[in-house]
Amino acid sequence: MRIALAQINSVVGDLEGNVNKIVHFVKKAQKFKADIVTFPELAICGYPPEDLLLKEHFVKDNLKALNSLVRKISNIAVIVGFVDRDKKGYLYNAAAVISKGKIKGIYHKVKLPNYGVFDEKRYFQPGKEFPLFELNQVVFGINICEDIWELKGVAKLQADEGAQVIINISASPYYAGKENLKKKILTKQAKETRTYLCYNNLVGGQDELVFDGGSVVFDFAGKEIIRGKQFEEDLIIADLPIKKITNKIRGKKCIKISIPENIKKPVLPESKVKKSKQINKIYSALVLGTQDYIRKNGFQKVVVGLSGGIDSALTAVIARDAIGKENVIGISMPSRYSLMETQKDARILAKNLGIRFITISIEDIFKVYLRVLEKEFLGLKNDVTEENLQARIRGNILMAFSNKFNWLVLTTGNKSETSVGYCTLYGDMAGGFAVIKDVPKIMVYRLAEFVNEKENESLIPESILVREPSAELRENQKDRDSLPPYTILDKIIKGYVEEDKSSKKITTNKISIGTVRKIIRMVDKNEYKRRQSSPGIKITSKAFGKDRRFPITNKYKE
Amino acid sequence: MRIALAQINSVVGDLEGNVNKIVHFVKKAQKFKADIVTFPELAICGYPPEDLLLKEHFVKDNLKALNSLVRKISNIAVIVGFVDRDKKGYLYNAAAVISKGKIKGIYHKVKLPNYGVFDEKRYFQPGKEFPLFELNQVVFGINICEDIWELKGVAKLQADEGAQVIINISASPYYAGKENLKKKILTKQAKETRTYLCYNNLVGGQDELVFDGGSVVFDFAGKEIIRGKQFEEDLIIADLPIKKITNKIRGKKCIKISIPENIKKPVLPESKVKKSKQINKIYSALVLGTQDYIRKNGFQKVVVGLSGGIDSALTAVIARDAIGKENVIGISMPSRYSLMETQKDARILAKNLGIRFITISIEDIFKVYLRVLEKEFLGLKNDVTEENLQARIRGNILMAFSNKFNWLVLTTGNKSETSVGYCTLYGDMAGGFAVIKDVPKIMVYRLAEFVNEKENESLIPESILVREPSAELRENQKDRDSLPPYTILDKIIKGYVEEDKSSKKITTNKISIGTVRKIIRMVDKNEYKRRQSSPGIKITSKAFGKDRRFPITNKYKE
Repeated sequence: MRIALAQINSVVGDLEGNVNKIVHFVKKAQKFKADIVTFPELAICGYPPEDLLLKEHFVKDNLKALNSLVRKISNIAVIVGFVDRDKKGYLYNAAAVISKGKIKGIYHKVKLPNYGVFDEKRYFQPGKEFPLFELNQVVFGINICEDIWELKGVAKLQADEGAQVIINISASPYYAGKENLKKKILTKQAKETRTYLCYNNLVGGQDELVFDGGSVVFDFAGKEIIRGKQFEEDLIIADLPIKKITNKIRGKKCIKISIPENIKKPVLPESKVKKSKQINKIYSALVLGTQDYIRKNGFQKVVVGLSGGIDSALTAVIARDAIGKENVIGISMPSRYSLMETQKDARILAKNLGIRFITISIEDIFKVYLRVLEKEFLGLKNDVTEENLQARIRGNILMAFSNKFNWLVLTTGNKSETSVGYCTLYGDMAGGFAVIKDVPKIMVYRLAEFVNEKENESLIPESILVREPSAELRENQKDRDSLPPYTILDKIIKGYVEEDKSSKKITTNKISIGTVRKIIRMVDKNEYKRRQSSPGIKITSKAFGKDRRFPITNKYKE
Repeated sequence: MRIALAQINSVVGDLEGNVNKIVHFVKKAQKFKADIVTFPELAICGYPPEDLLLKEHFVKDNLKALNSLVRKISNIAVIVGFVDRDKKGYLYNAAAVISKGKIKGIYHKVKLPNYGVFDEKRYFQPGKEFPLFELNQVVFGINICEDIWELKGVAKLQADEGAQVIINISASPYYAGKENLKKKILTKQAKETRTYLCYNNLVGGQDELVFDGGSVVFDFAGKEIIRGKQFEEDLIIADLPIKKITNKIRGKKCIKISIPENIKKPVLPESKVKKSKQINKIYSALVLGTQDYIRKNGFQKVVVGLSGGIDSALTAVIARDAIGKENVIGISMPSRYSLMETQKDARILAKNLGIRFITISIEDIFKVYLRVLEKEFLGLKNDVTEENLQARIRGNILMAFSNKFNWLVLTTGNKSETSVGYCTLYGDMAGGFAVIKDVPKIMVYRLAEFVNEKENESLIPESILVREPSAELRENQKDRDSLPPYTILDKIIKGYVEEDKSSKKITTNKISIGTVRKIIRMVDKNEYKRRQSSPGIKITSKAFGKDRRFPITNKYKE
């Protein structure tokens, strides 16, 4: 049996576009005389459709889209994800098996994830049936995403009932390191079930999530036969050397699908996906997530405030790699506290990237604000008010360009500062998409170094990499005035935010409980800021946003 | 049996404070010689604790808090909500029955809501047992919130097994009209189960939710015996004239609790809660939600930008009623487009309210922005850019006062404009709490009229009520330049946002499908703005926020 796994980048809500894309990939698979071609979870409507699912007409339109696809399918079996609805109106996260213009059978996802970023129990009922299919005397079972993450679960059951091939269609969002976990589980499943395991994952960015593709086929010994690209659309095709089933088992409970057997199949092109390092993958995820947010929301160009610091530098590089240098504009907005060196670095970076560079001093505006507020603030010392004012003037200027030219503003805050609120609401937090929102500061440095190594030049000026971090909102300000060193801060944030550890468990020889508790308080206290932050790409095991649903009003103190 | 229902205002995470409050109400109930006193769902830790529940140490601390309470309870039975944990680490939304320094039994919530604002399947496992309790020969069953919303469910089962009293502890968030639905269900339950039904609801604001109390006791014929206040803490006490159970039924499966019987009980004070109109209730919900957000988050004062329009007027009145006139500051920030009349109205309103009033012209700042941007915007027409700039300057000024004096900024946007994005991100949307975010414009008018009627004076100047709505961001601007009349707009929003209807179903003789589709597009397109809006009080059956989880990236078009 020749199977093709189409890891496509479907768009939430774009029913027609998704069907067209699916048809395109079906044709591609047919060129190679594949017997069967699979598509990701909810490929028809995109994943996750969230509360669109509560609209009856949306579900109906998704069924219509499925039917329009069905009519186009002839001599190949197609497996595709869609939203099913029963007579009572209950919804199911479903996979249809299509052949010869008909839906031959439907599988309903059994395990519905309702943790982390997932809300599937909000929408779906769990499936309770495990139909098997027989395609030209090869028996296969289908399941969906979460189903395959449980050992001795759905796949085992299907294998025990006679499946020789298990096909899992997924929409599994990426975070750094998840691939290893996934590979481990899938290998175990293949071995446990003694089947050929075909894992077809979605690819693309959707708001805060990036789906990384990396579809893969394992043989019954858990050995990888073929693997798809990561962070790109791909069609991977494998010939599974399966013995046709004996009369004894055949057809017992199976839904039969017969298509003309293609005896003479074209030779498959050599497929080899290069292994890459984790930092490379994280970078690719950021580029894809940024690209898809921009493009799927209909923007052509983006604007980034370039401070001469590392966060905005990395953001600009990612933006360039996502949509091209001609579509990225950098704006430098110096104040009385901006050093000549940082301004120069911003300019050099823009030049290195080949992006348009605009300079607008905020000094005059800042002065008028101070004058206008003078009377009311009389006799009071300068404090965070004046610092935030500068950040907010910059936010306003970026938004003015956004409004005037329809450029999307990319914000540049990293996870470390977002965690502790070392950022200004409506200031540097202003913008449509927060590219590195979930990237801790130490990882920002590693990504910047990676970028420079990759390009084999000082794309990001060395001086940006070595300068001590500063918000430049007052004389001689340094991040370390308010925060512990980032090596320590990032460990505390990982422990508290990502791993939900208590302060005691985060404390080490090098990190005092006092520091830990201080940071925890800061994280808690700044929940209100994060609630108003722009969406950004999830890159860790727990991002802010729907991955971490935290009360603002919260008096809990360990 | 004398039962007391304590509808308390617990605070999320404030374990110690909540226990103290519970002890205080237990003592109050004991003064009246109540045999049993009940507390709301998750009263120990507050509701909803959200992802605090994922922290093992939080759950442990909640158990410790429960135990500290248990030690303080002697000759009365106490029922209180807490988070239970089994040996495997699974969590349950639970109720403990406490007496004589011991936990006599525990009930685990069976029906876990996972729709609307609820995420309970994210945290909890469903209960599977239905213990009955016998207190001095009266048999009662306990269940929790959602459990009682299903007819022929948990309560019926408990009644069939012998319960004479059903106690439901709840944390049921308010929206306009929900009380009627609730009363209907509870009456039916009482009749169906032929028991005394005691419904104890939480009271208070928690981020976007307001719990309205309104605890109530029904007799077995579904007749109301006593009802608690709405939107206030209250202790309601009722004597249930229940026959002590016969030997036949007694003690079969029951957990026995015996406390000294108080033969001579003090006479209960007459309790009569005045019926109030729906508009009054909505107003009270807004006041309580505002008050609790401010106080529970440790703010003393708030600041409101007063434009002379009806939205900011209503917001200021609510703020005054929530925390007192001495704690509200109004700031007028006129521009070249502000009419003398609106400025005057803002001043009169502040005077009527007796709040401090500050005027800061934005004109000088606006001019400098225009000058600084002149070169880059050369030859381009004025558009929304310049309008938004003005709104953002105002946002910055309010935030400057917030930063300098630690005043919470209340934003003033209503649901109609929030829906269609007729508001400026980081401009009029800037602030910590959006009081009337879920109040449609037509309801804003009704609330303003209600306020004026209630005060028997023109608290909100008549001219504010009659003037045609305008954002005053350009010459002669009117809301109707961009939007259909609010009577129509609000109907479309209700149909689309709250009821998830298709455009066809929203269309009527008076509302064309073209208008409906235009508005739907605007609602969808502005999801990105709402994602960055401040929290505000849920008042309708579906608010923006966690009640409506909508993708930003979404190409669905009917």
